[in-house]
Amino acid sequence: MSNPRKPIIGIMGPGEPDDEDLLFHAEELGSRIAQNGWNLLTGGRKAGVMDAASKGAYESGGTVIGILPGKKQSEMSEFVTIPVMTGMGSARNFINILSADVVIVCGMGLGTASEAALAIKHAKPVVLTYVSRDQLNFFNSLSSKKLFISNKPDEIIRQVKYLL
Amino acid sequence: MSNPRKPIIGIMGPGEPDDEDLLFHAEELGSRIAQNGWNLLTGGRKAGVMDAASKGAYESGGTVIGILPGKKQSEMSEFVTIPVMTGMGSARNFINILSADVVIVCGMGLGTASEAALAIKHAKPVVLTYVSRDQLNFFNSLSSKKLFISNKPDEIIRQVKYLL
Amino acid sequence: MSNPRKPIIGIMGPGEPDDEDLLFHAEELGSRIAQNGWNLLTGGRKAGVMDAASKGAYESGGTVIGILPGKKQSEMSEFVTIPVMTGMGSARNFINILSADVVIVCGMGLGTASEAALAIKHAKPVVLTYVSRDQLNFFNSLSSKKLFISNKPDEIIRQVKYLL
Amino acid sequence: MSNPRKPIIGIMGPGEPDDEDLLFHAEELGSRIAQNGWNLLTGGRKAGVMDAASKGAYESGGTVIGILPGKKQSEMSEFVTIPVMTGMGSARNFINILSADVVIVCGMGLGTASEAALAIKHAKPVVLTYVSRDQLNFFNSLSSKKLFISNKPDEIIRQVKYLL
Repeated sequence: MSNPRKPIIGIMGPGEPDDEDLLFHAEELGSRIAQNGWNLLTGGRKAGVMDAASKGAYESGGTVIGILPGKKQSEMSEFVTIPVMTGMGSARNFINILSADVVIVCGMGLGTASEAALAIKHAKPVVLTYVSRDQLNFFNSLSSKKLFISNKPDEIIRQVKYLL
Repeated sequence: MSNPRKPIIGIMGPGEPDDEDLLFHAEELGSRIAQNGWNLLTGGRKAGVMDAASKGAYESGGTVIGILPGKKQSEMSEFVTIPVMTGMGSARNFINILSADVVIVCGMGLGTASEAALAIKHAKPVVLTYVSRDQLNFFNSLSSKKLFISNKPDEIIRQVKYLL
Repeated sequence: MSNPRKPIIGIMGPGEPDDEDLLFHAEELGSRIAQNGWNLLTGGRKAGVMDAASKGAYESGGTVIGILPGKKQSEMSEFVTIPVMTGMGSARNFINILSADVVIVCGMGLGTASEAALAIKHAKPVVLTYVSRDQLNFFNSLSSKKLFISNKPDEIIRQVKYLL
Repeated sequence: MSNPRKPIIGIMGPGEPDDEDLLFHAEELGSRIAQNGWNLLTGGRKAGVMDAASKGAYESGGTVIGILPGKKQSEMSEFVTIPVMTGMGSARNFINILSADVVIVCGMGLGTASEAALAIKHAKPVVLTYVSRDQLNFFNSLSSKKLFISNKPDEIIRQVKYLL
């Protein structure tokens, strides 16, 4: 019996975004990930992009892996189906990156920047979305290859398929 | 829509046991965990109790969360369905404990001893199995309450239900 | 210019011991470690064996490396001279073990048991002290070689020298 | 007896910089840190800014704390006097940040970017040096307050004093 393990797609984004559109976008991506039969992985918190993407995947019947910074489930998105409690704060960002087969950087914040940098450093396939031109340039200047960026869910999902 | 999150039952046991019976026992427990609709969590390696319990759960249609010490899937049990790559060696033992709702200590080894000790320290419900009288006494002497021990799958599963 | 790096001797022991003698013993060992020109490493908390050993080393003019579980220095022993804040709770126990050249297990508790088990697993030289016969037997039964045990500071320090 | 603990100044910079000037600058900063009676903290590797800063501090008689990603001292800068082996790869970046009283971001790379982002996120005092205008703008756009930047050792050390 072979184990047809589902790919894990990480969505990394800010917990306190100031842009409502970003949350709709994250929810849409979460939903598409589930519809494609992939597992979603996020930082697991009940906040911002993590929560929105988890909602999208959960409501489309998907599995939502949440890698939480704390020990307690009280701060967890209610849409997480597989909670992993690390108790190690932002050190868990590294686990997010190592565990995702493709990393979608969705919006930008300080925690997200640390994850984007680690993903590129550790040669994970990365897709950027809802990231400004200047932010893209920052990461491109540190990366050995040009990063893919798009704000269109169709294009993003097509790129994820290509990267898997 | 409410999220009926499945309980996570951890099975912690040696990667290099010298007792074949222990592996059959671990596989049986993994199978029962899946049959009860629970998720299994192990240290994820293709070795010993981790691998046997994962096989049992997987072949009974269950979800198998593997919290791996390394970065590469090459050392992973083929029965893991949700791989979490930590890249932090034995520091991941703490994540195993924090993430399990009940911890089954299945056989004894050095890594397992570290996990049993952390589980009791952090007040996780613990069940011991295939552990010698002296080993039980060691942990009982450090615990504020008497630990449950049994080698019978029926009793173990009943105790897990009680602890959830 | 060569760097004559000082050996790091770890003292691992319970934060809440019930035995006052143990604390005097830990302080004495800390003092001897400093007098031998070695650096002391502990879990860094202002509690039990960690605090007592740190006091001994500090008052003998030694360097005291504290690997703390939290993010804040408020829980730290005032005798730590090199604080390392990990923010990762009991996962830091693994760092204690990896960073010590020799590990002295001084008394027993749940956190200490997890450290003793990891030290033996990762082939660190280990010395046991203020550990009961049953506790010694527990670790000996899991170890490939017989562990050294003594309650006499002279013997312990001689064994540390031998192991370095 | 009070413990006049020395401040810990972190220098975070790339392991594989393409600019020789950056290494001289890092060495100069390490030297100044030691001359001010502060302890230096780096990622501990025998590479790039970590190694150069460690050399500067060591040769000025300072203490050099190296928080290493691996388990083995073979990859360590020979100028580290206090090696802390984490065995947790890039997850150790978070420990670097938590343990430094002030973080000097010296040059830019992917690991350095992850550390700069975590430092700002966790409200550590940060000084930037040998960072381009665009890189500065990237972090300023994510920070709630304007970041200090200078390439002059005198100014940098004055700012560190101010921040302590």
